[in-house]
Amino acid sequence: MTFFPESLSRLISELTKMPTVGPRTAQRLAFFLLTCPREDVDGLIQALRDVRERIRRCEECFNLSEQARCPVCEDPTRDVTQICVVADARDVSAVDRSGAYRGLYHVLGGLISPLDGIGPEDLNVGSLVNRVKAGNIREVILATDPTVPGETTALFIGRLLDGLPVRITRLATGLPLGADLDYADEVTISRSLQGRRPL
Amino acid sequence: MTFFPESLSRLISELTKMPTVGPRTAQRLAFFLLTCPREDVDGLIQALRDVRERIRRCEECFNLSEQARCPVCEDPTRDVTQICVVADARDVSAVDRSGAYRGLYHVLGGLISPLDGIGPEDLNVGSLVNRVKAGNIREVILATDPTVPGETTALFIGRLLDGLPVRITRLATGLPLGADLDYADEVTISRSLQGRRPL
Repeated sequence: MTFFPESLSRLISELTKMPTVGPRTAQRLAFFLLTCPREDVDGLIQALRDVRERIRRCEECFNLSEQARCPVCEDPTRDVTQICVVADARDVSAVDRSGAYRGLYHVLGGLISPLDGIGPEDLNVGSLVNRVKAGNIREVILATDPTVPGETTALFIGRLLDGLPVRITRLATGLPLGADLDYADEVTISRSLQGRRPL
Repeated sequence: MTFFPESLSRLISELTKMPTVGPRTAQRLAFFLLTCPREDVDGLIQALRDVRERIRRCEECFNLSEQARCPVCEDPTRDVTQICVVADARDVSAVDRSGAYRGLYHVLGGLISPLDGIGPEDLNVGSLVNRVKAGNIREVILATDPTVPGETTALFIGRLLDGLPVRITRLATGLPLGADLDYADEVTISRSLQGRRPL
Protein backbone atom coordinates (compact mmCIF):
# COMPACT_ATOMS: atom_id res chain seq x y z
CA MET A 1 0.00 0.00 0.00
CA THR A 2 1.26 3.48 -0.84
CA PHE A 3 0.69 6.32 1.57
CA PHE A 4 1.84 9.08 -0.78
CA PRO A 5 0.71 10.08 -4.27
CA GLU A 6 2.70 8.37 -7.06
CA SER A 7 4.80 11.41 -8.04
CA LEU A 8 5.80 12.06 -4.41
CA SER A 9 6.75 8.38 -3.85
CA ARG A 10 8.82 8.54 -7.02
CA LEU A 11 10.61 11.71 -5.88
CA ILE A 12 11.37 10.04 -2.52
CA SER A 13 12.76 6.97 -4.27
CA GLU A 14 14.88 9.12 -6.65
CA LEU A 15 16.28 11.06 -3.67
CA THR A 16 17.13 7.81 -1.87
CA LYS A 17 19.58 6.96 -4.69
CA MET A 18 21.87 9.75 -3.48
CA PRO A 19 24.63 9.06 -0.92
CA THR A 20 23.91 9.98 2.75
CA VAL A 21 20.14 10.08 1.97
CA GLY A 22 18.11 7.36 3.70
CA PRO A 23 14.33 6.89 3.42
CA ARG A 24 13.50 9.32 6.23
CA THR A 25 15.80 12.07 4.98
CA ALA A 26 14.43 11.53 1.46
CA GLN A 27 10.89 11.98 2.77
CA ARG A 28 11.89 15.16 4.59
CA LEU A 29 13.64 16.55 1.49
CA ALA A 30 10.65 15.61 -0.72
CA PHE A 31 8.23 17.48 1.54
CA PHE A 32 10.57 20.45 1.55
CA LEU A 33 10.78 20.39 -2.26
CA LEU A 34 6.99 20.09 -2.47
CA THR A 35 6.34 23.13 -0.29
CA CYS A 36 9.33 25.45 -0.89
CA PRO A 37 9.01 28.43 -3.27
CA ARG A 38 8.63 27.37 -6.90
CA GLU A 39 11.79 29.38 -7.86
CA ASP A 40 13.92 27.22 -5.56
CA VAL A 41 12.84 24.03 -7.33
CA ASP A 42 13.34 25.67 -10.73
CA GLY A 43 16.80 26.83 -9.62
CA LEU A 44 17.70 23.32 -8.52
CA ILE A 45 16.45 21.79 -11.79
CA GLN A 46 18.40 24.38 -13.82
CA ALA A 47 21.56 23.76 -11.77
CA LEU A 48 21.24 19.98 -12.28
CA ARG A 49 20.85 20.51 -16.03
CA ASP A 50 23.74 22.95 -16.29
CA VAL A 51 26.11 20.74 -14.32
CA ARG A 52 25.43 17.78 -16.59
CA GLU A 53 25.65 19.81 -19.79
CA ARG A 54 28.51 22.20 -19.11
CA ILE A 55 31.04 20.41 -16.95
CA ARG A 56 33.78 18.41 -18.61
CA ARG A 57 37.39 17.49 -17.86
CA CYS A 58 40.24 19.96 -18.40
CA GLU A 59 42.24 18.64 -21.37
CA GLU A 60 45.48 19.46 -19.57
CA CYS A 61 44.99 18.22 -15.99
CA PHE A 62 41.56 16.46 -15.95
CA ASN A 63 40.22 18.84 -13.32
CA LEU A 64 36.53 19.80 -13.65
CA SER A 65 35.98 22.67 -16.03
CA GLU A 66 33.38 24.45 -18.13
CA GLN A 67 36.04 25.36 -20.71
CA ALA A 68 38.62 23.25 -22.54
CA ARG A 69 41.17 24.18 -19.88
CA CYS A 70 40.31 24.56 -16.19
CA PRO A 71 40.63 27.83 -14.21
CA VAL A 72 43.84 26.58 -12.54
CA CYS A 73 45.58 25.76 -15.85
CA GLU A 74 44.40 29.11 -17.27
CA ASP A 75 45.56 31.13 -14.26
CA PRO A 76 48.75 33.00 -15.28
CA THR A 77 49.76 33.53 -11.63
CA ARG A 78 50.21 29.79 -11.02
CA ASP A 79 53.65 28.24 -10.62
CA VAL A 80 53.94 26.06 -13.74
CA THR A 81 56.98 24.16 -12.43
CA GLN A 82 54.97 22.20 -9.85
CA ILE A 83 52.32 19.52 -10.38
CA CYS A 84 50.25 18.24 -7.47
CA VAL A 85 48.87 14.77 -8.30
CA VAL A 86 45.46 14.02 -6.75
CA ALA A 87 42.91 11.22 -7.08
CA ASP A 88 39.83 13.33 -7.62
CA ALA A 89 38.63 16.84 -8.54
CA ARG A 90 37.40 17.21 -4.97
CA ASP A 91 40.99 16.91 -3.80
CA VAL A 92 41.98 19.87 -6.03
CA SER A 93 39.51 21.96 -4.06
CA ALA A 94 40.78 20.60 -0.73
CA VAL A 95 44.47 21.30 -1.49
CA ASP A 96 43.69 24.72 -2.97
CA ARG A 97 41.62 25.73 0.04
CA SER A 98 44.70 25.24 2.24
CA GLY A 99 46.28 28.22 0.46
CA ALA A 100 49.71 26.55 0.78
CA TYR A 101 50.02 25.52 -2.86
CA ARG A 102 50.02 27.71 -5.97
CA GLY A 103 51.17 25.25 -8.66
CA LEU A 104 49.29 23.09 -11.17
CA TYR A 105 47.32 19.88 -10.61
CA HIS A 106 46.89 16.52 -12.26
CA VAL A 107 43.69 14.58 -11.52
CA LEU A 108 44.17 10.82 -11.80
CA GLY A 109 40.47 10.00 -11.79
CA GLY A 110 40.85 7.34 -9.08
CA LEU A 111 43.40 5.25 -7.23
CA ILE A 112 44.90 1.86 -8.03
CA SER A 113 42.74 -0.72 -6.27
CA PRO A 114 42.98 -4.31 -7.57
CA LEU A 115 40.08 -5.37 -5.33
CA ASP A 116 37.81 -2.89 -7.13
CA GLY A 117 39.29 -3.81 -10.52
CA ILE A 118 40.99 -0.42 -10.94
CA GLY A 119 44.44 -0.71 -12.48
CA PRO A 120 46.96 1.95 -13.64
CA GLU A 121 45.46 1.79 -17.16
CA ASP A 122 42.20 3.23 -15.76
CA LEU A 123 43.96 6.34 -14.45
CA ASN A 124 45.29 9.45 -16.19
CA VAL A 125 48.96 8.46 -15.69
CA GLY A 126 50.21 8.46 -19.31
CA SER A 127 49.22 12.10 -19.68
CA LEU A 128 51.03 12.92 -16.43
CA VAL A 129 54.27 11.40 -17.72
CA ASN A 130 53.84 13.38 -20.95
CA ARG A 131 53.30 16.62 -19.03
CA VAL A 132 56.41 16.02 -16.94
CA LYS A 133 58.46 15.17 -20.04
CA ALA A 134 57.13 18.07 -22.11
CA GLY A 135 57.11 20.97 -19.65
CA ASN A 136 59.69 22.48 -17.39
CA ILE A 137 58.27 20.70 -14.35
CA ARG A 138 60.62 20.74 -11.37
CA GLU A 139 58.51 19.01 -8.73
CA VAL A 140 55.70 16.44 -8.68
CA ILE A 141 53.88 16.29 -5.33
CA LEU A 142 52.04 12.98 -4.88
CA ALA A 143 48.97 14.06 -2.88
CA THR A 144 47.01 10.80 -2.88
CA ASP A 145 45.39 9.67 0.39
CA PRO A 146 47.57 7.99 3.05
CA THR A 147 45.62 4.73 2.54
CA VAL A 148 46.58 1.45 0.86
CA PRO A 149 45.23 2.48 -2.59
CA GLY A 150 46.71 5.97 -2.18
CA GLU A 151 50.15 4.68 -1.17
CA THR A 152 50.11 2.06 -3.95
CA THR A 153 49.25 4.70 -6.54
CA ALA A 154 51.94 7.07 -5.21
CA LEU A 155 54.57 4.30 -5.34
CA PHE A 156 53.49 3.33 -8.87
CA ILE A 157 53.71 6.92 -10.16
CA GLY A 158 56.99 7.44 -8.31
CA ARG A 159 58.51 4.51 -10.19
CA LEU A 160 57.01 5.66 -13.50
CA LEU A 161 58.65 9.08 -13.16
CA ASP A 162 61.92 7.61 -11.90
CA GLY A 163 64.85 8.79 -14.02
CA LEU A 164 63.13 11.97 -15.19
CA PRO A 165 64.80 15.20 -14.02
CA VAL A 166 62.08 16.03 -11.52
CA ARG A 167 61.84 16.08 -7.74
CA ILE A 168 59.14 13.67 -6.53
CA THR A 169 57.61 14.34 -3.11
CA ARG A 170 54.80 12.91 -1.01
CA LEU A 171 52.53 14.73 1.46
CA ALA A 172 53.78 14.42 5.07
CA THR A 173 51.96 11.98 7.32
CA GLY A 174 51.72 12.49 11.08
CA LEU A 175 49.40 13.90 13.70
CA PRO A 176 46.70 16.22 12.34
CA LEU A 177 46.77 19.72 13.86
CA GLY A 178 44.74 19.93 17.06
CA ALA A 179 44.88 16.15 17.55
CA ASP A 180 44.87 14.49 20.95
CA LEU A 181 47.89 12.13 21.19
CA ASP A 182 45.87 9.87 23.45
CA TYR A 183 43.24 9.34 20.77
CA ALA A 184 45.56 9.03 17.75
CA ASP A 185 45.86 5.55 16.21
CA GLU A 186 49.11 3.57 16.46
CA VAL A 187 50.02 3.82 12.77
CA THR A 188 49.65 7.60 12.77
CA ILE A 189 51.83 7.90 15.91
CA SER A 190 54.37 5.49 14.41
CA ARG A 191 54.50 7.59 11.21
CA SER A 192 54.81 10.84 13.14
CA LEU A 193 57.78 9.32 15.06
CA GLN A 194 59.46 8.17 11.85
CA GLY A 195 58.95 11.61 10.31
CA ARG A 196 60.10 13.59 13.38
CA ARG A 197 61.96 16.82 12.73
CA PRO A 198 64.50 18.82 14.70
CA LEU A 199 62.81 21.66 16.58
CA MET B 1 38.23 32.49 -5.06
CA THR B 2 36.13 29.66 -6.46
CA PHE B 3 37.48 26.14 -6.57
CA PHE B 4 34.65 24.67 -8.63
CA PRO B 5 33.19 25.64 -12.01
CA GLU B 6 30.28 28.07 -11.77
CA SER B 7 27.51 25.54 -12.50
CA LEU B 8 28.85 23.11 -9.88
CA SER B 9 29.12 25.87 -7.23
CA ARG B 10 25.56 26.86 -8.07
CA LEU B 11 24.31 23.26 -7.70
CA ILE B 12 26.08 23.01 -4.32
CA SER B 13 24.46 26.24 -3.15
CA GLU B 14 21.01 25.11 -4.37
CA LEU B 15 21.40 21.81 -2.52
CA THR B 16 22.43 23.63 0.67
CA LYS B 17 18.97 25.24 0.78
CA MET B 18 17.46 21.85 1.66
CA PRO B 19 17.04 20.76 5.29
CA THR B 20 19.68 18.39 6.75
CA VAL B 21 22.07 19.32 3.90
CA GLY B 22 25.17 21.24 5.01
CA PRO B 23 27.99 22.45 2.74
CA ARG B 24 29.95 19.17 2.88
CA THR B 25 26.92 16.97 2.21
CA ALA B 26 25.90 19.32 -0.61
CA GLN B 27 29.36 18.94 -2.16
CA ARG B 28 29.13 15.16 -1.89
CA LEU B 29 25.64 15.10 -3.42
CA ALA B 30 26.74 17.47 -6.23
CA PHE B 31 29.68 15.21 -7.15
CA PHE B 32 27.36 12.22 -7.12
CA LEU B 33 24.86 14.03 -9.37
CA LEU B 34 27.70 15.05 -11.69
CA THR B 35 29.01 11.52 -12.13
CA CYS B 36 25.93 9.26 -11.76
CA PRO B 37 24.19 7.84 -14.86
CA ARG B 38 22.44 10.52 -16.91
CA GLU B 39 19.08 8.68 -16.52
CA ASP B 40 19.23 9.10 -12.73
CA VAL B 41 19.52 12.89 -13.02
CA ASP B 42 16.76 12.96 -15.65
CA GLY B 43 14.58 10.83 -13.37
CA LEU B 44 15.18 13.21 -10.47
CA ILE B 45 14.40 16.28 -12.60
CA GLN B 46 11.20 14.64 -13.90
CA ALA B 47 10.12 13.66 -10.37
CA LEU B 48 10.72 17.23 -9.13
CA ARG B 49 8.64 18.61 -12.02
CA ASP B 50 5.81 16.09 -11.52
CA VAL B 51 5.59 16.66 -7.79
CA ARG B 52 5.23 20.41 -8.27
CA GLU B 53 2.74 20.11 -11.11
CA ARG B 54 0.55 17.21 -10.04
CA ILE B 55 0.25 17.31 -6.28
CA ARG B 56 -2.53 19.32 -4.71
CA ARG B 57 -4.69 19.14 -1.59
CA CYS B 58 -7.64 16.75 -1.34
CA GLU B 59 -10.78 18.93 -1.41
CA GLU B 60 -12.31 16.79 1.34
CA CYS B 61 -9.52 16.27 3.89
CA PHE B 62 -6.55 18.40 2.64
CA ASN B 63 -4.32 15.34 2.38
CA LEU B 64 -1.85 15.33 -0.54
CA SER B 65 -3.39 14.04 -3.74
CA GLU B 66 -2.98 13.96 -7.49
CA GLN B 67 -6.77 13.90 -7.94
CA ALA B 68 -9.50 16.13 -6.54
CA ARG B 69 -10.01 13.62 -3.72
CA CYS B 70 -7.14 11.71 -2.08
CA PRO B 71 -6.76 7.89 -2.17
CA VAL B 72 -7.99 7.63 1.45
CA CYS B 73 -11.21 9.57 0.80
CA GLU B 74 -11.75 7.56 -2.41
CA ASP B 75 -11.16 4.17 -0.73
CA PRO B 76 -14.58 2.47 -0.28
CA THR B 77 -13.21 0.11 2.40
CA ARG B 78 -12.53 2.99 4.80
CA ASP B 79 -14.64 3.54 7.88
CA VAL B 80 -16.40 6.83 7.11
CA THR B 81 -17.60 7.33 10.68
CA GLN B 82 -14.14 8.16 12.02
CA ILE B 83 -11.95 11.20 11.33
CA CYS B 84 -8.36 11.32 12.52
CA VAL B 85 -7.20 14.95 12.77
CA VAL B 86 -3.49 15.48 12.04
CA ALA B 87 -1.26 18.51 11.58
CA ASP B 88 0.43 17.50 8.37
CA ALA B 89 0.17 15.12 5.39
CA ARG B 90 3.26 13.33 6.72
CA ASP B 91 1.25 12.39 9.81
CA VAL B 92 -1.38 10.70 7.60
CA SER B 93 1.36 8.41 6.36
CA ALA B 94 2.66 7.79 9.89
CA VAL B 95 -0.77 6.89 11.33
CA ASP B 96 -1.69 4.76 8.31
CA ARG B 97 1.58 2.84 8.49
CA SER B 98 0.64 1.69 11.99
CA GLY B 99 -2.18 -0.34 10.41
CA ALA B 100 -4.32 0.35 13.50
CA TYR B 101 -6.60 2.90 11.86
CA ARG B 102 -8.90 2.47 8.86
CA GLY B 103 -11.00 5.64 9.02
CA LEU B 104 -10.73 9.02 7.29
CA TYR B 105 -8.32 11.89 7.96
CA HIS B 106 -8.40 15.65 8.23
CA VAL B 107 -5.16 17.55 7.65
CA LEU B 108 -5.04 20.86 9.54
CA GLY B 109 -2.04 22.22 7.68
CA GLY B 110 -0.18 23.17 10.86
CA LEU B 111 -0.65 23.67 14.60
CA ILE B 112 -1.71 26.71 16.61
CA SER B 113 1.48 28.48 17.63
CA PRO B 114 1.12 32.15 18.63
CA LEU B 115 4.92 32.55 18.80
CA ASP B 116 5.13 31.65 15.08
CA GLY B 117 2.08 33.75 14.30
CA ILE B 118 -0.09 30.73 13.46
CA GLY B 119 -3.65 31.08 14.74
CA PRO B 120 -6.75 28.89 14.28
CA GLU B 121 -7.72 30.95 11.20
CA ASP B 122 -4.60 29.63 9.40
CA LEU B 123 -5.70 26.01 9.85
CA ASN B 124 -8.35 23.90 8.09
CA VAL B 125 -10.69 23.86 11.10
CA GLY B 126 -13.88 25.34 9.59
CA SER B 127 -13.98 22.54 7.03
CA LEU B 128 -13.51 19.99 9.82
CA VAL B 129 -16.55 21.34 11.69
CA ASN B 130 -18.55 21.22 8.44
CA ARG B 131 -17.51 17.62 7.81
CA VAL B 132 -18.53 16.60 11.33
CA LYS B 133 -21.87 18.43 11.01
CA ALA B 134 -22.61 17.11 7.51
CA GLY B 135 -21.60 13.47 7.72
CA ASN B 136 -22.46 10.62 10.01
CA ILE B 137 -19.18 11.00 11.91
CA ARG B 138 -19.19 9.14 15.22
CA GLU B 139 -15.62 9.77 16.42
CA VAL B 140 -12.99 12.45 15.94
CA ILE B 141 -9.51 11.36 17.02
CA LEU B 142 -7.24 14.32 17.74
CA ALA B 143 -3.83 13.00 16.64
CA THR B 144 -1.75 16.17 16.97
CA ASP B 145 1.71 15.90 18.55
CA PRO B 146 1.93 15.72 22.37
CA THR B 147 3.71 19.10 22.39
CA VAL B 148 2.53 22.58 23.47
CA PRO B 149 1.26 23.54 19.97
CA GLY B 150 -0.25 20.07 19.49
CA GLU B 151 -2.05 20.10 22.84
CA THR B 152 -3.25 23.69 22.30
CA THR B 153 -4.65 22.76 18.88
CA ALA B 154 -6.33 19.61 20.25
CA LEU B 155 -7.94 21.61 23.09
CA PHE B 156 -9.11 24.28 20.64
CA ILE B 157 -10.70 21.75 18.27
CA GLY B 158 -12.17 19.85 21.20
CA ARG B 159 -13.98 23.01 22.31
CA LEU B 160 -15.07 23.82 18.76
CA LEU B 161 -16.72 20.41 18.37
CA ASP B 162 -18.20 20.52 21.86
CA GLY B 163 -21.97 19.98 21.74
CA LEU B 164 -21.91 18.07 18.46
CA PRO B 165 -23.06 14.43 18.70
CA VAL B 166 -19.59 13.03 18.26
CA ARG B 167 -17.07 11.25 20.47
CA ILE B 168 -13.81 13.24 20.71
CA THR B 169 -10.67 11.33 21.65
CA ARG B 170 -6.97 12.08 21.92
CA LEU B 171 -4.02 9.74 21.24
CA ALA B 172 -2.74 8.10 24.43
CA THR B 173 0.48 9.46 25.91
CA GLY B 174 2.88 7.29 27.89
CA LEU B 175 6.04 5.26 27.48
CA PRO B 176 6.87 4.37 23.88
CA LEU B 177 7.14 0.62 23.22
CA GLY B 178 10.62 -0.72 23.93
CA ALA B 179 11.49 2.30 26.09
CA ASP B 180 13.88 2.18 29.02
CA LEU B 181 12.13 3.57 32.12
CA ASP B 182 15.47 4.83 33.40
CA TYR B 183 15.92 7.02 30.31
CA ALA B 184 12.32 8.25 29.98
CA ASP B 185 11.74 11.92 30.80
CA GLU B 186 9.77 12.96 33.88
CA VAL B 187 6.75 14.32 31.99
CA THR B 188 6.36 11.09 30.00
CA ILE B 189 6.56 8.98 33.19
CA SER B 190 4.11 11.31 34.92
CA ARG B 191 1.68 10.99 31.97
CA SER B 192 2.06 7.20 31.87
CA LEU B 193 1.20 7.08 35.61
CA GLN B 194 -1.87 9.30 35.17
CA GLY B 195 -3.03 7.12 32.28
CA ARG B 196 -2.33 3.77 33.99
CA ARG B 197 -4.71 0.93 33.18
CA PRO B 198 -5.83 -2.19 35.03
CA LEU B 199 -3.83 -5.21 33.84
